[in-house]
Amino acid sequence: MNFDHVNIPGKLVPDYYLKLGLAAQRGKQRSFKELLEKRKLPENGWPDKQIEELVHLLASLDSNNYPHKIGLGEREARIACKLVARRHYNFGHGIGRSGDLLEAQPKAAGSTLLARLTNALILDLFRGIGLPSCAGCFLVPMCTGMTLTLCLQSLRKQRPAAKYVLWSRIDQKSCFKAITAAGLEPVIIPCLIQGESLDTNVDLFREKIMSLGVESILCLYTTTSCFAPRNSDDIAEVSKLSKQWQIPHMVNNAYGLQAKNIVHKLEWANRVGRIDYFVQSCDKNLLVPVGSAIVASFNKNLLQHVASTYAGRASGSQSLDVFMTLLSLGRNGFQLLIERRSENFLYLREKLKKFAQLRGEIVLDSRFNSISAAITLATIAGDQKESITQLGSMLHTRGVSGARVIVPGQDKSIDGHEFVDFGSHRTDLKVPYLTVAAGIGISREEIDKFFDIFGRCWNKLFQNKNVKTKSLPETID
Amino acid sequence: MNFDHVNIPGKLVPDYYLKLGLAAQRGKQRSFKELLEKRKLPENGWPDKQIEELVHLLASLDSNNYPHKIGLGEREARIACKLVARRHYNFGHGIGRSGDLLEAQPKAAGSTLLARLTNALILDLFRGIGLPSCAGCFLVPMCTGMTLTLCLQSLRKQRPAAKYVLWSRIDQKSCFKAITAAGLEPVIIPCLIQGESLDTNVDLFREKIMSLGVESILCLYTTTSCFAPRNSDDIAEVSKLSKQWQIPHMVNNAYGLQAKNIVHKLEWANRVGRIDYFVQSCDKNLLVPVGSAIVASFNKNLLQHVASTYAGRASGSQSLDVFMTLLSLGRNGFQLLIERRSENFLYLREKLKKFAQLRGEIVLDSRFNSISAAITLATIAGDQKESITQLGSMLHTRGVSGARVIVPGQDKSIDGHEFVDFGSHRTDLKVPYLTVAAGIGISREEIDKFFDIFGRCWNKLFQNKNVKTKSLPETID
Amino acid sequence: MNFDHVNIPGKLVPDYYLKLGLAAQRGKQRSFKELLEKRKLPENGWPDKQIEELVHLLASLDSNNYPHKIGLGEREARIACKLVARRHYNFGHGIGRSGDLLEAQPKAAGSTLLARLTNALILDLFRGIGLPSCAGCFLVPMCTGMTLTLCLQSLRKQRPAAKYVLWSRIDQKSCFKAITAAGLEPVIIPCLIQGESLDTNVDLFREKIMSLGVESILCLYTTTSCFAPRNSDDIAEVSKLSKQWQIPHMVNNAYGLQAKNIVHKLEWANRVGRIDYFVQSCDKNLLVPVGSAIVASFNKNLLQHVASTYAGRASGSQSLDVFMTLLSLGRNGFQLLIERRSENFLYLREKLKKFAQLRGEIVLDSRFNSISAAITLATIAGDQKESITQLGSMLHTRGVSGARVIVPGQDKSIDGHEFVDFGSHRTDLKVPYLTVAAGIGISREEIDKFFDIFGRCWNKLFQNKNVKTKSLPETID
Amino acid sequence: MNFDHVNIPGKLVPDYYLKLGLAAQRGKQRSFKELLEKRKLPENGWPDKQIEELVHLLASLDSNNYPHKIGLGEREARIACKLVARRHYNFGHGIGRSGDLLEAQPKAAGSTLLARLTNALILDLFRGIGLPSCAGCFLVPMCTGMTLTLCLQSLRKQRPAAKYVLWSRIDQKSCFKAITAAGLEPVIIPCLIQGESLDTNVDLFREKIMSLGVESILCLYTTTSCFAPRNSDDIAEVSKLSKQWQIPHMVNNAYGLQAKNIVHKLEWANRVGRIDYFVQSCDKNLLVPVGSAIVASFNKNLLQHVASTYAGRASGSQSLDVFMTLLSLGRNGFQLLIERRSENFLYLREKLKKFAQLRGEIVLDSRFNSISAAITLATIAGDQKESITQLGSMLHTRGVSGARVIVPGQDKSIDGHEFVDFGSHRTDLKVPYLTVAAGIGISREEIDKFFDIFGRCWNKLFQNKNVKTKSLPETID
Repeated sequence: MNFDHVNIPGKLVPDYYLKLGLAAQRGKQRSFKELLEKRKLPENGWPDKQIEELVHLLASLDSNNYPHKIGLGEREARIACKLVARRHYNFGHGIGRSGDLLEAQPKAAGSTLLARLTNALILDLFRGIGLPSCAGCFLVPMCTGMTLTLCLQSLRKQRPAAKYVLWSRIDQKSCFKAITAAGLEPVIIPCLIQGESLDTNVDLFREKIMSLGVESILCLYTTTSCFAPRNSDDIAEVSKLSKQWQIPHMVNNAYGLQAKNIVHKLEWANRVGRIDYFVQSCDKNLLVPVGSAIVASFNKNLLQHVASTYAGRASGSQSLDVFMTLLSLGRNGFQLLIERRSENFLYLREKLKKFAQLRGEIVLDSRFNSISAAITLATIAGDQKESITQLGSMLHTRGVSGARVIVPGQDKSIDGHEFVDFGSHRTDLKVPYLTVAAGIGISREEIDKFFDIFGRCWNKLFQNKNVKTKSLPETID
Repeated sequence: MNFDHVNIPGKLVPDYYLKLGLAAQRGKQRSFKELLEKRKLPENGWPDKQIEELVHLLASLDSNNYPHKIGLGEREARIACKLVARRHYNFGHGIGRSGDLLEAQPKAAGSTLLARLTNALILDLFRGIGLPSCAGCFLVPMCTGMTLTLCLQSLRKQRPAAKYVLWSRIDQKSCFKAITAAGLEPVIIPCLIQGESLDTNVDLFREKIMSLGVESILCLYTTTSCFAPRNSDDIAEVSKLSKQWQIPHMVNNAYGLQAKNIVHKLEWANRVGRIDYFVQSCDKNLLVPVGSAIVASFNKNLLQHVASTYAGRASGSQSLDVFMTLLSLGRNGFQLLIERRSENFLYLREKLKKFAQLRGEIVLDSRFNSISAAITLATIAGDQKESITQLGSMLHTRGVSGARVIVPGQDKSIDGHEFVDFGSHRTDLKVPYLTVAAGIGISREEIDKFFDIFGRCWNKLFQNKNVKTKSLPETID
Repeated sequence: MNFDHVNIPGKLVPDYYLKLGLAAQRGKQRSFKELLEKRKLPENGWPDKQIEELVHLLASLDSNNYPHKIGLGEREARIACKLVARRHYNFGHGIGRSGDLLEAQPKAAGSTLLARLTNALILDLFRGIGLPSCAGCFLVPMCTGMTLTLCLQSLRKQRPAAKYVLWSRIDQKSCFKAITAAGLEPVIIPCLIQGESLDTNVDLFREKIMSLGVESILCLYTTTSCFAPRNSDDIAEVSKLSKQWQIPHMVNNAYGLQAKNIVHKLEWANRVGRIDYFVQSCDKNLLVPVGSAIVASFNKNLLQHVASTYAGRASGSQSLDVFMTLLSLGRNGFQLLIERRSENFLYLREKLKKFAQLRGEIVLDSRFNSISAAITLATIAGDQKESITQLGSMLHTRGVSGARVIVPGQDKSIDGHEFVDFGSHRTDLKVPYLTVAAGIGISREEIDKFFDIFGRCWNKLFQNKNVKTKSLPETID
Repeated sequence: MNFDHVNIPGKLVPDYYLKLGLAAQRGKQRSFKELLEKRKLPENGWPDKQIEELVHLLASLDSNNYPHKIGLGEREARIACKLVARRHYNFGHGIGRSGDLLEAQPKAAGSTLLARLTNALILDLFRGIGLPSCAGCFLVPMCTGMTLTLCLQSLRKQRPAAKYVLWSRIDQKSCFKAITAAGLEPVIIPCLIQGESLDTNVDLFREKIMSLGVESILCLYTTTSCFAPRNSDDIAEVSKLSKQWQIPHMVNNAYGLQAKNIVHKLEWANRVGRIDYFVQSCDKNLLVPVGSAIVASFNKNLLQHVASTYAGRASGSQSLDVFMTLLSLGRNGFQLLIERRSENFLYLREKLKKFAQLRGEIVLDSRFNSISAAITLATIAGDQKESITQLGSMLHTRGVSGARVIVPGQDKSIDGHEFVDFGSHRTDLKVPYLTVAAGIGISREEIDKFFDIFGRCWNKLFQNKNVKTKSLPETID
């Protein structure tokens, strides 16, 4: 709605004042036009009210918001609770059409526009931050693990005879379960231990391909973002194998979009080899609430397979979150977040090194990990595993979320597969360690506060150990 | 936060006035206490502000909302856009823990509470409306089709050798794709044609079980809610087969929760036979935006399998919608919606019969369908399929969403499976028809307006046919 | 903003779906156009989102919302707190221009439009509910009392030599203080006691005019809405005096807009005599928060005097409330509220009569009061004034707000003027009574609940009296 | 509401997680307790959600929000439109009680708390920024002019025989109309012209006191904040007169709170003389929407007179705005705004001087004005008044609001009083000038952009003049 064809009487407002007001709208109107016609991420973020105006406008194009709608089907985006309608800006129809996430929804022109614009903006973002070859991408309103499963399911439709997934071990539960959820057979490729760090065992990948046979292998499956001391997988080399043997290659890029070197590695790997899909979490990269992921590919046709594997119409709520966030940040806002994260990671690692040096520990070498760092916990509590575990709890109680303590001997079984020393990505862990990460959005103040708290907890535990008394239960203060 | 331990000076407000105000809070406090301790749906709906107060309170228990949180992991529910944070009431952590939808999330006591309370309220609702034997249920933030896939995936973990899914044909795309998405082999059981209506071919189910062999069959798969003239499947008889042969039985109850007789049939079928999972859409039964479903079972242990098949942490947005909606409606509000729907369906069918009678058409008999009804379109346009299709478009243009025109000869291929006369649930459709439905939330006014529009469109098409002129393009007015 | 000149690519949404969505906007666009061009209250209320869309649009015309505003003055509607900006829809400039409430504000075309449209809608409402001769009106963002003061101040500018205000006694503090606040001399005209009811002493008005001299009298000042047993003033007769002697006449119509007979009396009184200003509360008639009033007149020129007496730029918040409320109700919604109030008043009075009859009390006759009714409290507690006062407190404690207990002997001094038996509008009150009112928005359920509580309190007090024990302190339960 | 007495079952959430969440609430609870018990402005601003939580909690103490309220009076804060209720956080009762702005409202403990807390926080702010002797203050929900009128009205009650107000001329309409609105007689004291600046003519004040007689003078009336080249009045000297002759002294401190030297002058003037009331605008100092003011005094008793002059119950909306803003800024946030403004004023004046120098103009000396500065427009357009006026319009069109052009010969009559050269505060203006101001909230970027625009407009006009062509109409682009 606007005042274009309204003859506002001079009685209501002097013409000159009105003209100034209307003129001021033109810039806004231009940015709307540009967004819809060019489908590019704006350079600068939009103010909140402008974002909401567009969102409201889009919602008004959905049939449930027509003034005279008559719903004679099973249900027509009726929303019973006004608070719910309000928080969804009156969107109700979701995205896609039964059985295809990318199809237009006949009852919902606005939702369709929202979903497709969001995908277009994400693509523009991808290309701008170092993935110029990215051919397409789309948001899936499911977590990263389930989205990986969806990719595997769509690959199975293409290679019905294959059942093995060759997976470079990473000790994160849901990315492994993505394989078993799809009813496929994981073939675990242990990491190559190089000094203190863990790298991709490319040779073993090759051996497995040869021993199992190309036809029986659904895909190679690697991971870019992980906790130190595991390094980002050597996706370039795995991509070459993929290309050479014509086996699909899927990359779990969970929170890799925020790291420039990972992004560049993706672009490079595709150039020298083959990546079919790379999947990333929205919440971990785009700072929205948990619950959605992005499937991207360097080959547009491959995406349609995944979209049409989704059986039903999906929630539009996650697209809305990403849409609003991208408009709010703009390209520059996102770039700034990436720059800051990068600086803060270096800051974190440096402080960690100093912290380690003073206490006779070391920061584990993991040069191909630009998000996470790990510090050994060798001196703190001798053989007492409890003390180490207690450290994690102490940090948590003091508001430090995300720091993880890894101790030897924590075995775990997932869907019938045994993982020795789970959490360490290896089977022969000797020294416990603590891993921290500098994710997007982290601030220098948080890092400083962390070291303050970490130091105090350390001292407390160290003291306890030396006076040989049992450490007291840590109360919540 | 409250004023319990605050000594508000009399200078600020006279003690007597304050006491009245504080006393008025007690009822509210009681209802909060009761909700959390008893986990039952309130009899009467809560006012909006009370719902929001509880939601805000829950959100404040999540670590991202702690005043002094320090996030040193990959990402800690940081939300970049204030509008997004606001619309999620500052929830950001999602629900579940990597690889289990029902686990508590250590970083998010509030989100955990929200998700579990929501599931408890849904269970209480289920039991109250006719499913006293329901042992448990939980919300899955994916569409119904993908949730059916999730159930199939979890059944496969239990029966790894089985690959067939015996499915009573229903022409709705995503419930069929739920099978192929899981990489399983659908065995289509055509409907039994009884006069004008379509029923479950129980004998054919039995034959297929015997011919394929019990071990190779993953499950029997039926549907309760569908468009007329297909009837609700005879789930009692299929349940008996399931029990007899010890083959799991999954029921697609997409929008069946709103129909009392379907609900009672579920309860009864389980008593005389076996139902492992029944799955329903949240948007179609609970009037929330599209994008979530509920898995329920009469056997609590079976649910855990499904929950732990979800690979990752899921969106909490859908739980929030259902939570707010249930509190807003209360048990009585939901009951009222069910009663009204039931009356309005009868009203719709009666009017449809009168409409048919006057025009030489009939309402197809489908007595076991209490949501949808179908009217033949035999006289309207002779052999001109275009005229019939045009009717659908005319209705749509005039704001009627949800009415569907079915014409003979519309074949369709889904994932390599051919469906003759797709949409009609049969392979020998002769007469085109229109199907309408009275879903929950429908009003009598909508029905009246529909017949007004339907009549006008009919007349227009009928006239066109008789004057033998080409019908004019229907403009959007 | 709209999509008029945007070429949305078919890639984003199929043209046909989009057209349907755009077509659905036309009705809305038409209602916007009509509202702004015709400036009439819509027949039916608008949905919330349509109201908000217009409000946002208006706000975007104010200079503080221009994307590139540069404020080099003392302050340019900068709003520090986002929550405040949000709740005011980014309006900040207020209404009017220093020293005239009705002037356009050069920095704020949107605020100007909002304020003037609001006044136009109010005028249309006035004319529609029985005041066709009303020549103009405007909202003043001050309470009714201060608005009456503003009218008196503007009359003084016209009659600088006059100092007396002839005021028909009504025991409501602020309407009396309206006179003293203006620095004028009130001349109190006691009511005429007619049986149980209190009427305007027209003869005394006439006598005072003659004794004080026309030139020294600023205006005659009457009141329409009041608590029983005082009746609405006989404004027709006072209007005749006003016309005859050419003395201005101001009517305090605080909550009279909601009563049809008062509205008709105003129209009639002006026809047979003279009313300069009549002033009504927004909150009491239009169901908005406390804090604004409407000055209306049958003579347009007189309004300008009042508007230009306001020294400064005023808050626009109250206009916004009334604007949104009127659009939300529409003419029909407001009419319905008036009808219901009228019925509920009769219902209340009937129940009160039955209540009285059963307990040996009477409902005081006040036939010219169609909003309030009074019941004697003669038998309840003998001479014990405390018991009577306690009744008020008991009712208040139980959630009954607005019922007032009047007991003899409550004298009060206001700005040097003594009022014997304050609250009763007379000086010789013998029997205590309770007064209740059926204001706009009251529901039948509230009335029923009131009588339930009233009965229980009555019985408790009555019992206490008869057992001659001191009544127990009433706790808040 | 909180979880204090709720036994949340471990089934819903593990006890340990819950404890962390509850512990995190304690800091918030402490800040609530401290705010209410100490009534001091918090050092640091609160986050939005904490502010809203408190506001909701306060609103729930008002009787219109009691779950079982029964309104039997004329109206009980019923709010018809949900959007209106929402934007007022369900507050509806306003503040004060008929005829006293400071009284508690029996039906509204929450509104009462809100209003009084707001006044307490403002007082704490005043004392903290340089007014330690301030004895009290309160917000009046009317503009500054009407609030000055209210003070005059209350002074008249104390000095009924007096009618003159001795007013140091300042050409701002509403502060003059504040006198005539009250029905009082202004005695205009022209400014003393000192070189280029305009100062208070203290001698003339003294002469007028002697010639009119102390008894006939209601008060002396000065102004602190004004547009250059007028200086802030010499309130110290006028205060001495006030004390000496025992005549009340009222200071219009419209936007003076933001300037440290004005604040200090107020404190000093009261120490050496007498100030009865000083009045400031909320919007101009506290960055809220237009429409409220603060009356403050060094003598607490004097405030009660003003509060009880307000005839009615007032809007609480303005108190809510100030309350939320103060909590959002905190003491430090407000201090920072003051510091920045001060720096930006110096920056503005310096740039203006350079601009003037380059163009053969001067910045008028007004050393006792620390908010506004004026530059002559002598060379730009010779005798063409139109060109000068056009400059104002050109700036306005380009988004510069608040810059004012003053030209000789603009006479004006206000309520029968003639002002020669209105706008210039003098009667013999020779050279036109432009005045700009650095109000609170201004940014350096705005100043830079202003000079950019100013320069371009200047050049355009200058060129036009020299080529002796008529300047073209400036279109809105």
